[in-house]
Amino acid sequence: MNGALAEPEHGMTAGHDVGRGLEAVFKPRSIALIGASDDPTKIGGRPLQFLQRYGYAGAVYPVNRKGGTVQSLPAYASVAELPETPDLAVVTAPPESVPEAIRACAARGVRAAVVISSGFSEMGAAGQALQQQIGDIARASGMRIVGPNCLGAIGVHEKSIATFSVALEAGFPAAGAVGIVSQSGNLGSYAMRVAAERGAGISRLLTTGNECDVDIADAIAALALDDVSSVILCCMETCRDGPRLVRALALAREAGKPVVVLKVGVSDAGSAAAASHTGALAGSDAVFDVVLRNGGAIRVPSIEQLIEVGLAISVVGVPRAPRGGRVAVLTASGGFGVLLADAASAQGLTLAPLQEATRARILAAVPFASPANPVDMTAQVSSRPELLAEVLDAVAADDSCDALLLQSANAFNMPRLRDVFLAALRRLREAHPARTLLVCSRAPREVAQQLHALGFPTVEGLDAACATLAALVQLGRQAGARPAAAPAPAAAAPLDARAFADEASAKAVLAAAGLPVLREATAATRAAALAAAQDIGFPVVLKIVSPDIAHKTEVGGVVVGVRTPAQLEAEYDALLARVTQNAPQARITGVLVAQMAPQGTELILGTKKDPVFGPMVMVGLGGIYAEVFQDVALQTAPVSEAQAEAMLRSLKTFPLLDGARGRAKADVAAAARAVASLSRFAAAHAHSVAEIDINPLVVLAQGQGAFALDALLVPSPRSQETEHHV
Amino acid sequence: MNGALAEPEHGMTAGHDVGRGLEAVFKPRSIALIGASDDPTKIGGRPLQFLQRYGYAGAVYPVNRKGGTVQSLPAYASVAELPETPDLAVVTAPPESVPEAIRACAARGVRAAVVISSGFSEMGAAGQALQQQIGDIARASGMRIVGPNCLGAIGVHEKSIATFSVALEAGFPAAGAVGIVSQSGNLGSYAMRVAAERGAGISRLLTTGNECDVDIADAIAALALDDVSSVILCCMETCRDGPRLVRALALAREAGKPVVVLKVGVSDAGSAAAASHTGALAGSDAVFDVVLRNGGAIRVPSIEQLIEVGLAISVVGVPRAPRGGRVAVLTASGGFGVLLADAASAQGLTLAPLQEATRARILAAVPFASPANPVDMTAQVSSRPELLAEVLDAVAADDSCDALLLQSANAFNMPRLRDVFLAALRRLREAHPARTLLVCSRAPREVAQQLHALGFPTVEGLDAACATLAALVQLGRQAGARPAAAPAPAAAAPLDARAFADEASAKAVLAAAGLPVLREATAATRAAALAAAQDIGFPVVLKIVSPDIAHKTEVGGVVVGVRTPAQLEAEYDALLARVTQNAPQARITGVLVAQMAPQGTELILGTKKDPVFGPMVMVGLGGIYAEVFQDVALQTAPVSEAQAEAMLRSLKTFPLLDGARGRAKADVAAAARAVASLSRFAAAHAHSVAEIDINPLVVLAQGQGAFALDALLVPSPRSQETEHHV
Repeated sequence: MNGALAEPEHGMTAGHDVGRGLEAVFKPRSIALIGASDDPTKIGGRPLQFLQRYGYAGAVYPVNRKGGTVQSLPAYASVAELPETPDLAVVTAPPESVPEAIRACAARGVRAAVVISSGFSEMGAAGQALQQQIGDIARASGMRIVGPNCLGAIGVHEKSIATFSVALEAGFPAAGAVGIVSQSGNLGSYAMRVAAERGAGISRLLTTGNECDVDIADAIAALALDDVSSVILCCMETCRDGPRLVRALALAREAGKPVVVLKVGVSDAGSAAAASHTGALAGSDAVFDVVLRNGGAIRVPSIEQLIEVGLAISVVGVPRAPRGGRVAVLTASGGFGVLLADAASAQGLTLAPLQEATRARILAAVPFASPANPVDMTAQVSSRPELLAEVLDAVAADDSCDALLLQSANAFNMPRLRDVFLAALRRLREAHPARTLLVCSRAPREVAQQLHALGFPTVEGLDAACATLAALVQLGRQAGARPAAAPAPAAAAPLDARAFADEASAKAVLAAAGLPVLREATAATRAAALAAAQDIGFPVVLKIVSPDIAHKTEVGGVVVGVRTPAQLEAEYDALLARVTQNAPQARITGVLVAQMAPQGTELILGTKKDPVFGPMVMVGLGGIYAEVFQDVALQTAPVSEAQAEAMLRSLKTFPLLDGARGRAKADVAAAARAVASLSRFAAAHAHSVAEIDINPLVVLAQGQGAFALDALLVPSPRSQETEHHV
Repeated sequence: MNGALAEPEHGMTAGHDVGRGLEAVFKPRSIALIGASDDPTKIGGRPLQFLQRYGYAGAVYPVNRKGGTVQSLPAYASVAELPETPDLAVVTAPPESVPEAIRACAARGVRAAVVISSGFSEMGAAGQALQQQIGDIARASGMRIVGPNCLGAIGVHEKSIATFSVALEAGFPAAGAVGIVSQSGNLGSYAMRVAAERGAGISRLLTTGNECDVDIADAIAALALDDVSSVILCCMETCRDGPRLVRALALAREAGKPVVVLKVGVSDAGSAAAASHTGALAGSDAVFDVVLRNGGAIRVPSIEQLIEVGLAISVVGVPRAPRGGRVAVLTASGGFGVLLADAASAQGLTLAPLQEATRARILAAVPFASPANPVDMTAQVSSRPELLAEVLDAVAADDSCDALLLQSANAFNMPRLRDVFLAALRRLREAHPARTLLVCSRAPREVAQQLHALGFPTVEGLDAACATLAALVQLGRQAGARPAAAPAPAAAAPLDARAFADEASAKAVLAAAGLPVLREATAATRAAALAAAQDIGFPVVLKIVSPDIAHKTEVGGVVVGVRTPAQLEAEYDALLARVTQNAPQARITGVLVAQMAPQGTELILGTKKDPVFGPMVMVGLGGIYAEVFQDVALQTAPVSEAQAEAMLRSLKTFPLLDGARGRAKADVAAAARAVASLSRFAAAHAHSVAEIDINPLVVLAQGQGAFALDALLVPSPRSQETEHHV
């Protein structure tokens, strides 16, 4: 792909084949190993070692120029000489020999290749050229290529092993439903190893490396479309094609497979490190956040949490995910109860009060218990652990909570208590098959696996337990709701270059697109200015119009509160005289005569075209505070009016629009209409408009509307360039 | 203590005996077990079981009314009948028999008692009365009492076991230097168990339960003064006496022992749960934060982090704590490097660029490495692990970083790599004995212990590793700096009740204390108002003065911009007429004539007396945003001017005072003087003033000062009551 960013407009149609043809990587009937080494510990030798050791059932063909045998198998000098066409080629040959090998595979009709070899775009221009060659072969032939410079892929059920990961030296993961995709090979294989150690069954691992053909969107889509994965864990550093990612997330959503995403490279330091790591431009984190949220993905902040949430989802299953965030916390210790109450609050969960009948049942079982939520069963439950079953049943029968969280510091580590606790949980599962309960404990692995078999996920840390439960709640809420509908973007004719000339032109164009502005007119003479003022109605504002003056106030180019015809004539002359003196070089287009702005709450409103995800719209409270506190809401454009209102309501400063501290309520509906109009305009003109700034959008009192007081349209560099050439 | 809050003024002198007499709990020559049970698994039987099992060397005397033998030892019917006076009594008897037993202990000269029995203040009024009795005995006799309703205490070196904790059923912790104090018994024993499992040696555990005598401050001070602890881990739900806690933290600081604090009950839900758990009022979290920071304590957000940080400090030691936050991250994986860069940034650490010479040495050792920070040693380091020693030495020799963080996903789990890595780290320790390096890895316990022995702490999670390193940096910075000096509070004569009457009186009192205010005078007649205005100078503002009118503007009681004598006379009459009509019942004291306020940046400034920690001063940017974003700085009063300026500089909105976006720089020094003056006033009048609000404090441009535009003094309820009785 030569590092160039795909055009979103192009990608939007290209996205329909995302994930295509990757079954050959996971379910190949036969595998060729190009560059296979006789030394089973070398990178070129490990895939063959693993295939033989873990019992891959298909045919395996080492390809090695020297011929002879490789790890006891007969080797072939080239792909052309193979006795049959393999479904998959795993390439560990030196980089300079890879294009020829790939060409031979394509000619032979190999369906997919995993290029593990490094020495491509991560190594400068020469490597970049090699990578371009193999990418071109993929596009021309339809053969899918994973990598280069990747850790490879594993189909766990099929024991299809196209990787050199040292994680497999210690053992092969149990087959299951947790799928893992990652741009970084190390993160992907680490997640696989730890998830397996924690008791998860794995379906597939796919690491995409330099992404000459198969990208992270393909990887997500391939697992969304397979018949073995039920949850997809994703480590993503960057996205080269936004619409393909959006399409992949939609495929996973349609398949009912949650996608859990760790975005790598969030901070400035991290982004800088990511750039040096992959050579790819890391997108704005806020934009990723919006895209992932819109796509129904669950975003996690750490690799530990990626594994916890993936494991919990695979244990609980989507249908049993809690539909709300009201949690009942059960402990044998007040101190842990308080810590869990803190941790749950920090995750947006609520500790709902239990019903009176529930509390009575708890007290009947454990007289010294604290039956409020968190429920403190006290040390009693260690002396008489059989009480747990009754308390659990009482709470599970109470529909004022959506999920249960059972914490125990010691019980699952002591044989006497452990068996009684497990029996109580078995009874709970029988009596309440649909209930979500998460166990927070340092339980040994064999105990954890018994709990998992009952559908109860386990998490060791208190904060991690609450974060995991919150992710399950997010999943349950999404499963119970349809995604917010965004209007379909409509393309419009390119804007005339004059639209970008000055504020007046920008406002005229935006007003035509439905954005409310004050009445105004540009006058070239004093008489025209007077006529305009009389048409608009006094008082008016005068502003200089010039393509050369960005900051009008600084050159004395603004006069407010002009109330009479005589005043207008005098101020008109004075304005021109000041500007001529202060900015003698500036070309003066005229003087803008505008309606005097009524007072209101000021918002900043804007759009910006993201290089990966296309036009975004953002809104926040105006003034210096937006900058200090970065309290802005962001969405992909276009948005509906309902979505725009949701953006406004998500601001921390929304109370200032909503009548806080005795203020008049602002016209939120009008503000939302303005946001939606601007977003539609930005989406329709995505080709020619890079950025729009409305600062401020003045929102008047309820029922009185809103209007853009100033506007700036920035053309996209490409659009300007085109004009110059025309 | 009967639930009453100690007077800070009283506590300040009482704090000098904090921690007194607790050696008898940890180093008793003999122990009486009052209420000892013959059943070693019962709560009353476990302390004796543990003492015998783990080999306590002193004499042990079971006390049990029935006499005979208890767990093979002869039992005594009462404390009076014991053959010698024991140093320590451990009480597990029923609550109603505890006061008599405690009285007998005091009479016999027992030095300390640990009351494990429950059924006291946590169980209502009758229990509260029992608790009051034993607390009174402690205060009258000087015998120290731990509990009641506590999990007890352990002196690990001495095998002095005064606890029933089930954590000891699995084994006894190794002796070491990590001390643990906790109000919650379960949190304390969990921290001890997990820290011991992670390889830490433990010095002492002390849980304080209901705190009838020994409180959490005593517990901290006892470990600060002992000869075995080097770091103190503290789980705190509440503090009943602020000055004692401050004194205990100072003792620990003087002893060079870091105190790591987990404050339990941070959220609203958590505080509510804490209140139901201990019956104690949880203080404001922000106030705790200030007190802990002032005291040099390291605050952690979770029990997991409490253990990690405690373990890391015990491994690294205070002298080797890094003096700054510049970290060099070393990985064998770009993906992990990016995640660690994100995690380090989130913790306020910086990834400093390495020196050119360092990068050259890294590249000479590992040609394909990424020598920027994070350093990616690539998979090369798995193939040739001996390269690690050279990379480590290059980075450790580079003084552009304060600490190293070495991450490895697999190396410490694979024998071949592990041994080479350990050898490299051994070389590093020899060549750079003072360097801090933290290992982030899922290393098995025996490997972790070898690393700890070299002074390298280990942490498994990436975020946790960076948080732990940040805590070490905080420790190192504190060790290298003297705490900010706060002025000594000076008591003043009680304020006259009239000071609280209205804004004018409040401003007069505060002006006398050094707070700048505008020139103003209260006039009772139109002529007096005119004279005042002529004295102050036009333009002036007129404001109604009435004890019955809180919101002057609402009754038409404010006129701004009075510019001439004639205007003043007319407005004076109109003002009185409006107020008389709008608030006919209000008593009118006069009309305030004030200097017209120049424009400036508005701050809110105030003081509030915390029930536990005494007067606090707070300052923030004025207006509605302070409320929405809670961007205020808090300190204990009084503060010096330097401390006040540091408070201002800590505000997110400080750039608005500091010339952001082309504004004029504000007079920060004058604002700091105003904050300091007000804080001194609040501290001096802590007896009579509950709260002061200055809203706004207007800060003018640099060199032009600041002034309080409005002021409100709220008397303390007790002070008002006293006046009513006088």
